[in-house]
Amino acid sequence: MNSTKPYEHLIEHRLDHTEVYKGSFLHAFRDTVTLPDGKTTVREYLKHPCATMVIPIRDDGRLIVERQYRYPVQQVMIEFPAGKLDPEENALDCARRELREETGYQASEWAHAGVLHSGISTSTEFIDIWFARGLSPGTRELDAGEFLDVFDASLEELLEWARLGLLTDAKTLTGLLWLQNHLNGSWKLDWHSVPPTP
Amino acid sequence: MNSTKPYEHLIEHRLDHTEVYKGSFLHAFRDTVTLPDGKTTVREYLKHPCATMVIPIRDDGRLIVERQYRYPVQQVMIEFPAGKLDPEENALDCARRELREETGYQASEWAHAGVLHSGISTSTEFIDIWFARGLSPGTRELDAGEFLDVFDASLEELLEWARLGLLTDAKTLTGLLWLQNHLNGSWKLDWHSVPPTP
Repeated sequence: MNSTKPYEHLIEHRLDHTEVYKGSFLHAFRDTVTLPDGKTTVREYLKHPCATMVIPIRDDGRLIVERQYRYPVQQVMIEFPAGKLDPEENALDCARRELREETGYQASEWAHAGVLHSGISTSTEFIDIWFARGLSPGTRELDAGEFLDVFDASLEELLEWARLGLLTDAKTLTGLLWLQNHLNGSWKLDWHSVPPTP
Repeated sequence: MNSTKPYEHLIEHRLDHTEVYKGSFLHAFRDTVTLPDGKTTVREYLKHPCATMVIPIRDDGRLIVERQYRYPVQQVMIEFPAGKLDPEENALDCARRELREETGYQASEWAHAGVLHSGISTSTEFIDIWFARGLSPGTRELDAGEFLDVFDASLEELLEWARLGLLTDAKTLTGLLWLQNHLNGSWKLDWHSVPPTP
């Protein structure tokens, strides 16, 4: 369905590609593209490193979540742990590192759920979604300039906060869709044991 | 929970604010901020107009969705209808306009669901989520340069495509969370009759 093959009447093709801004975090491009009707237009977007998100399930069924101030939206947000891949890092290693650094937890079992695209009109970003269980607590190692609270909540609490508009982060809401359908037995996961980081 | 009041230990405060790029679509800023520990850092982000997304439910229970090529991710994506607010436009008017322009449908009943933030580390954007029912078909009026297919699907089909990784747009996945919990009776909606646009 995401394959572009049968959809040539929708596809845009690149004519040129120009970097328009490279800051410390944002990397913006402006491409000229051919539209399906042969006309041309401009597409501006951000190149973004890939990222991972972790849905950490405690043995008692409660979820590990974070509370973090997000400057662009000027709000403290409730989120599942997430972060960008380091260069050369694979997605599972990134997920394990982010979980350990941000929450202190290590997990003995991991399952890959899927992928989400966070801002398809603006950014190349996609986020790889992982489930983690068999959690053991440890010490956090936050990055410089990173401030966040870690706490636990039940699925029912997270869903109620979503319904009330207190949890509005699209990646975390997508995580709740996965969690709800996994826990109700509809979406099976393929769990793998992963030895702890020394 | 999203209130910043009890979370002063997480909050960042703006010191300065600089526009770094203004293109035809992207509008980027670079602010210097004070961190909770008194140090300073830089936050780069996009200012984005607000947007709306519509979850259109046909009388037979099937959903109206779109297939659209999204250049930043170089993929044809399955999405609920969505679009940006025009200047001075309110969210419901935007939702009605986007539904009519992109799909041709008008709806006689509308319900506000909630809000999602699509990219909280990168963008100010939020998307207002609306449900629409009492649909009557009409003629599409696509913007210049807009190419998209409209089709219908059941909730079960959309959930299956999400599970299989064929539907990965975070706003649409968030819409599925709302839809699933609305249709299973957990999340009530407050429907309002809205007269058709002349």
